[in-house]
Amino acid sequence: MCTVAIQLRVKKCYNTRVNTPDSIYLDYAAAAPVDKRVLEVMQPYFSEEFFNPSSPYAPAVKVRREYEAAKDRLAHTFGAKGDEVVITAGATESINLAFNGIKGDIITSKIEHSAVISAAKHHGGVVFVKPTEAGLISAKSIAESMTPQTELVSVQLANHELGTIQPLREIAAVIKQERETRAESGNKTPILFHSDASQGFGSIDVHIARLGVDMLTLNSGKIYGPKQVGLLWHKPSVKLSPLIFGGGQEAGVRSGTENVAGVIGFAKAAQLATGKLSDTAKLRDLMQTRLLDKFPQAVVSGHKKKRLPNFLHISFPGIDAERVIFLLEDEGVYVATGSACAASRQTKSNVLDAIGMDDSLARGSLRLTLGRGTTSEMVNVAIDKIVAVIESEYMRLEGYVA
Amino acid sequence: MCTVAIQLRVKKCYNTRVNTPDSIYLDYAAAAPVDKRVLEVMQPYFSEEFFNPSSPYAPAVKVRREYEAAKDRLAHTFGAKGDEVVITAGATESINLAFNGIKGDIITSKIEHSAVISAAKHHGGVVFVKPTEAGLISAKSIAESMTPQTELVSVQLANHELGTIQPLREIAAVIKQERETRAESGNKTPILFHSDASQGFGSIDVHIARLGVDMLTLNSGKIYGPKQVGLLWHKPSVKLSPLIFGGGQEAGVRSGTENVAGVIGFAKAAQLATGKLSDTAKLRDLMQTRLLDKFPQAVVSGHKKKRLPNFLHISFPGIDAERVIFLLEDEGVYVATGSACAASRQTKSNVLDAIGMDDSLARGSLRLTLGRGTTSEMVNVAIDKIVAVIESEYMRLEGYVA
Repeated sequence: MCTVAIQLRVKKCYNTRVNTPDSIYLDYAAAAPVDKRVLEVMQPYFSEEFFNPSSPYAPAVKVRREYEAAKDRLAHTFGAKGDEVVITAGATESINLAFNGIKGDIITSKIEHSAVISAAKHHGGVVFVKPTEAGLISAKSIAESMTPQTELVSVQLANHELGTIQPLREIAAVIKQERETRAESGNKTPILFHSDASQGFGSIDVHIARLGVDMLTLNSGKIYGPKQVGLLWHKPSVKLSPLIFGGGQEAGVRSGTENVAGVIGFAKAAQLATGKLSDTAKLRDLMQTRLLDKFPQAVVSGHKKKRLPNFLHISFPGIDAERVIFLLEDEGVYVATGSACAASRQTKSNVLDAIGMDDSLARGSLRLTLGRGTTSEMVNVAIDKIVAVIESEYMRLEGYVA
Repeated sequence: MCTVAIQLRVKKCYNTRVNTPDSIYLDYAAAAPVDKRVLEVMQPYFSEEFFNPSSPYAPAVKVRREYEAAKDRLAHTFGAKGDEVVITAGATESINLAFNGIKGDIITSKIEHSAVISAAKHHGGVVFVKPTEAGLISAKSIAESMTPQTELVSVQLANHELGTIQPLREIAAVIKQERETRAESGNKTPILFHSDASQGFGSIDVHIARLGVDMLTLNSGKIYGPKQVGLLWHKPSVKLSPLIFGGGQEAGVRSGTENVAGVIGFAKAAQLATGKLSDTAKLRDLMQTRLLDKFPQAVVSGHKKKRLPNFLHISFPGIDAERVIFLLEDEGVYVATGSACAASRQTKSNVLDAIGMDDSLARGSLRLTLGRGTTSEMVNVAIDKIVAVIESEYMRLEGYVA
């Protein structure tokens, strides 16, 4: 067995590439490395236990059992059963699958991930509720947007740019109330509650019974699992409409030969992530305090209390954050302006637009997200470098000298 | 670096699990192990080069370039360009994507993979042309089924149960002729030609210009690449209709964070597979000769000459192939009755039904498919064991004693 060697190699590379004083990665919300413990459990399924789970002979049946067992372990991490879970190629596919059967109206918001916004628009009548300035979607705003034709409400667990945690339980209560009203009035239109929990799972408690959702999207890549693996959990009573037809895998809802290595890895990642929730709030608060002390004009966005412990969204008036990112890159510090998708297309963040941030402040925004490998030493080195870059930027700009 | 250790480990495990006299895998059409050279090039992209290709900083831009370069290398193996390729989560998704924009009539056959049949049915008016007894779809049968409303013709490169290679060039010529007729008559309905080349790529020449197709599906898992990775190639003039909406990756056609490790692996697998086409025809002929010598009543199906070099489909009258599979499993020989999908649902093969094989003969069918690790020693050991099992089955059945 080369397990130890693989561990050592991964550890070594992990340490040399990111998370050293010379190379500090603060963009865990965009992508996370596969945890070495996850990669280790995946390895046998590439070249040894490679059999098609649908084949009839014993080694393939063993793979089928291990696949189903991994789905069970994965589902248990958020209070569900394996057969309520559809494995997909990532959160984007999960979201599209959740929306696919919907024919009536949809309520969501413009601070959702682009996958939710695009899927909602593709499926027709969408009402976008307005978030608060802190990026909160209140249950009241959902209640006010509800009509007798509303079939789906989709609200993320936590915002992917601000880290604001949404009041899913309260929203679920509003939907339950609406369901009761419909039952009384004889309105047979169903109403479902979906949440994209890609951001937040592993940092805060995620349990389907406590959240009150009918469908839940999770992403393996965000929790140190393999990329291109996701899931859509659904209540057994929710009938999904397939996007991909074929061999009838995943109970007929999502055809295609199963991703055994991916699911084995996703299950391990979910167990690690939920076994010990990541608590980086102290480090995040340290960053926030140091930056605000130095730049009192900076604006921290997102909810003051209901915020993911690893998120800091901070805007520096007058600064061009894209320049800052490239200057920081030279210093070996990697941070984001917004979500990776928006960043690549150089468009203004739909999140900042929706919370009403003015364009000039939005342009000076950085998103710093911490992860499993982040230490206080790294945070302090990174903040020193961020402070130096932003100071030099202010000095460069007439009228903004700090 | 632990590269050598990983190589050794994979090699060792590869050898201990399959492809030894004690454990002979003859079901490469159902699943293939990831080649150790493929797994090696993938390794850095799990935990080191893990960055989101859409992030703006240098390490992520490097990953983006490596991803695009891998797509180019992959596309070059079949004569295409990287930007004409949409990466998917496998052949099933590729096929569904190819069919998604089609609103008019579709011509295909019932010997296609279930993904093609299901996707075709989902999209409406389908004409199923009749294959020959050898599982051949003639260009003439396509021409005769054509109507002015036909928008898509989908014919596989090679059949996944029989190995019969389809005359794609001749079918392409028929479609070209139809296009010219439409242009002359002012019929503006477009007509496209798609081929699912999942089975055959790596065994026979696959080049888009020579095949004459407009869209081509390929699968990484069948060519010793990672599973849950596939592609749909399309001519630049073909406008695809997305199945999955979101961040706009893959030129807006297939959203979701890119599968960097998967595509790096797929490209390597395609280069290995096309660099030296797998030629197992001699070994396949050896199996065929030995089995027919012993059981002259057995029927070999598929085209005599136009057949994939690693496929042998053979039916033993009166035998229950499912029993044979389980008896062979005890001997460490793993073979299939048909495709893995059909096998799992214990239904009769749609392929054998379509070529007109009677039920009792179909029930006695084995599919033996050879692969990169198969040696003549393994083939001889496997045939000894298959002969012994089938002889004992015939002895068990009154009236069938050999």
